[in-house]
Amino acid sequence: MRIDPEGHVTTPRGFRAGATYAGVKTYGEGKLDLAVLVSDAPCSAAAVYTRSRLHAPSIDINREKLAHRPARGVVVNAGVANASTGERGKRDGYELARLAAVHAGIAPEEMLVCSTGVIGHYLPMDRLASAMPAIELSADGGPAFARAIMTTDTRPKMGAVRFGPYHLGGCCKGSGMIHPNMATMLAFLATDAPVEQALLQRALSAVVDESFNLVSVDGDTSPSDTVLLFANGAAGGDRVDAHHPLAGDFVAALRALCVHLAREIARDGEGATKLIEFTVSGAATADDARALVRQLSTSYLLKSAIHGADPNWGRVAAVVGRSGVELDESAVTIDLCGTRVFEAGRPTEFDPIELSRRLHRAEVSVAVHLGVGTAAATGWGCDLSAEYVSINADYHT
Amino acid sequence: MRIDPEGHVTTPRGFRAGATYAGVKTYGEGKLDLAVLVSDAPCSAAAVYTRSRLHAPSIDINREKLAHRPARGVVVNAGVANASTGERGKRDGYELARLAAVHAGIAPEEMLVCSTGVIGHYLPMDRLASAMPAIELSADGGPAFARAIMTTDTRPKMGAVRFGPYHLGGCCKGSGMIHPNMATMLAFLATDAPVEQALLQRALSAVVDESFNLVSVDGDTSPSDTVLLFANGAAGGDRVDAHHPLAGDFVAALRALCVHLAREIARDGEGATKLIEFTVSGAATADDARALVRQLSTSYLLKSAIHGADPNWGRVAAVVGRSGVELDESAVTIDLCGTRVFEAGRPTEFDPIELSRRLHRAEVSVAVHLGVGTAAATGWGCDLSAEYVSINADYHT
Repeated sequence: MRIDPEGHVTTPRGFRAGATYAGVKTYGEGKLDLAVLVSDAPCSAAAVYTRSRLHAPSIDINREKLAHRPARGVVVNAGVANASTGERGKRDGYELARLAAVHAGIAPEEMLVCSTGVIGHYLPMDRLASAMPAIELSADGGPAFARAIMTTDTRPKMGAVRFGPYHLGGCCKGSGMIHPNMATMLAFLATDAPVEQALLQRALSAVVDESFNLVSVDGDTSPSDTVLLFANGAAGGDRVDAHHPLAGDFVAALRALCVHLAREIARDGEGATKLIEFTVSGAATADDARALVRQLSTSYLLKSAIHGADPNWGRVAAVVGRSGVELDESAVTIDLCGTRVFEAGRPTEFDPIELSRRLHRAEVSVAVHLGVGTAAATGWGCDLSAEYVSINADYHT
Repeated sequence: MRIDPEGHVTTPRGFRAGATYAGVKTYGEGKLDLAVLVSDAPCSAAAVYTRSRLHAPSIDINREKLAHRPARGVVVNAGVANASTGERGKRDGYELARLAAVHAGIAPEEMLVCSTGVIGHYLPMDRLASAMPAIELSADGGPAFARAIMTTDTRPKMGAVRFGPYHLGGCCKGSGMIHPNMATMLAFLATDAPVEQALLQRALSAVVDESFNLVSVDGDTSPSDTVLLFANGAAGGDRVDAHHPLAGDFVAALRALCVHLAREIARDGEGATKLIEFTVSGAATADDARALVRQLSTSYLLKSAIHGADPNWGRVAAVVGRSGVELDESAVTIDLCGTRVFEAGRPTEFDPIELSRRLHRAEVSVAVHLGVGTAAATGWGCDLSAEYVSINADYHT
């Protein structure tokens, strides 16, 4: 399925979005930090959240709302995550959603809320309340929405895809504290297909595990990770449930879009100069394959070596060895950028100069075959640069 | 127990060591890269190894030798790890041990072998064989031994301690690929007490879990991690077994020395400017406490924030939340350098300028109380600097 990288969260019919600057974000590109997305009609909605045990109040608020009725909009602020802020943080989250609902003309309980930014600070409610009326909601608002939710991101991350007569569009943000355990920091997806709730949630949960949950910038899971998917049926047609002829296409479209957005996050990782694709095959179980993908994508040493375009494949072998996954040493193979560097328990003969040249490209690959089964997984990460350190040594103060 | 930081692996009586330059190491301080340690008399010996499933051939060789009889010496080369080198690597390891045994005048099967350096390269056996005769073994050789085993280390790491009439001395190396899962990269310990084999091994296994296994520079466990402990009884007296009046003092001395050496590794982590001590208390289980110590000490974001002396405690909260350990959010407390920054589910009021001043010190502390039990653990790590990246982007080529 072909992703349109210029598509966005209001590409599907019947969704409007808009954004403004409320003065919360004090850094980064694009002076937008408060955004609203709303469906013209009632929706089905599905959500996946962080597994952090110290999650942000927004997670509790969205869970409570979705338990009672489907939502049809979300308000997002960037700059302050409103996490680790206790009861006051929860009250502030409810109030931010209420302000956005009044502005959008829907019921407060239909408006979800997400916050991203520094942890442990309270939301500046006065500024957010003053800024809200300036948000103009329109069918062209998707790109502004995508820019407003950015923190250390250097560019918005968007896309859309078609299946049958329907559109699926979305955007996400995330550049640091990226090692989602349920979802990436924030992603917002919308479709004008009339997908029913059960299929919507099942598809989202499954696809997130193969996309956002296999991207890592730094191994640090955020307490605010959230993926929301709205389906408003504005393009008409019969209800799309698991037996509908387009059900498979819907899941394929959702997978294609989520993988596209996950790759965009890795490519824009804090300080990143390269997108790295990690593939593990021949694993005994899918859990083993995913676990090894995540250990590879978080290795300080491997990320540094790839930053230096250094064909130091021993660092891949070190991660494979320590990962604890089942393997047959004599059958393990390691490929860097398509070049076999290790097989039959020993190094191959390869041209390190040519391989280093390939490692200088903007997209590189690391593939490991474990030789014990048929399970496989693919995930994404980025290199570790000195820029990552300076971004994160000075972020807060 | 008072550690003498000038003490070393030949401080105990009846041990000799020496080192030379064989031309294997092409970087780093001190032109020494081949070292031998030997006991004048037969020894008890205990060992702890990496849990990597792609471990170096030296691990297999040492296991095989120690299964048949106690060892009384070890040869170590730095520059090439001889890991992921298959059958040829194993033959080379046996041959290196044989060469050292002939030189030291002991049986080949009494000489253990360790290698550290780049993975996936073969040992230059000709150069090692030519260099071996130049090694002068003496009771003053401990410091030279400690320098010869260094790779990206910036200084040797040594120490000794007394218990009763006995000495325990040792050294270790390790600066990158430090996240031991059994032992740090390489540590060599010796005592002149007549400690019997069973106590020696039991004490070493237990102490390693509380010292080397709780230090992390970068989360990357090496395939060569090894800790060796020799006890030659040269200082006389009755055999020290579990019922000996000095058994407790021996274990306490071993713990004090291993903690000292583990801290030295963290302090000299690649690119490090600070030693960080992590303490977790109030945990439901010791496993939870240790797991959280290791997750804190490997967080890219937390290590970067501390490098910038940034009192961004939200990054501690993010790690605690994602760690999966049992906690009571309302009882969790976080302290940075002795300042309480989070309690009762919300931020405290503290002076960020004063806290940032404390975070500029060469030793800083992070303490988390989980509020659900009585288990605790302490571990060590270091900050993440741009220097770490440049060391590791250019190490191999």
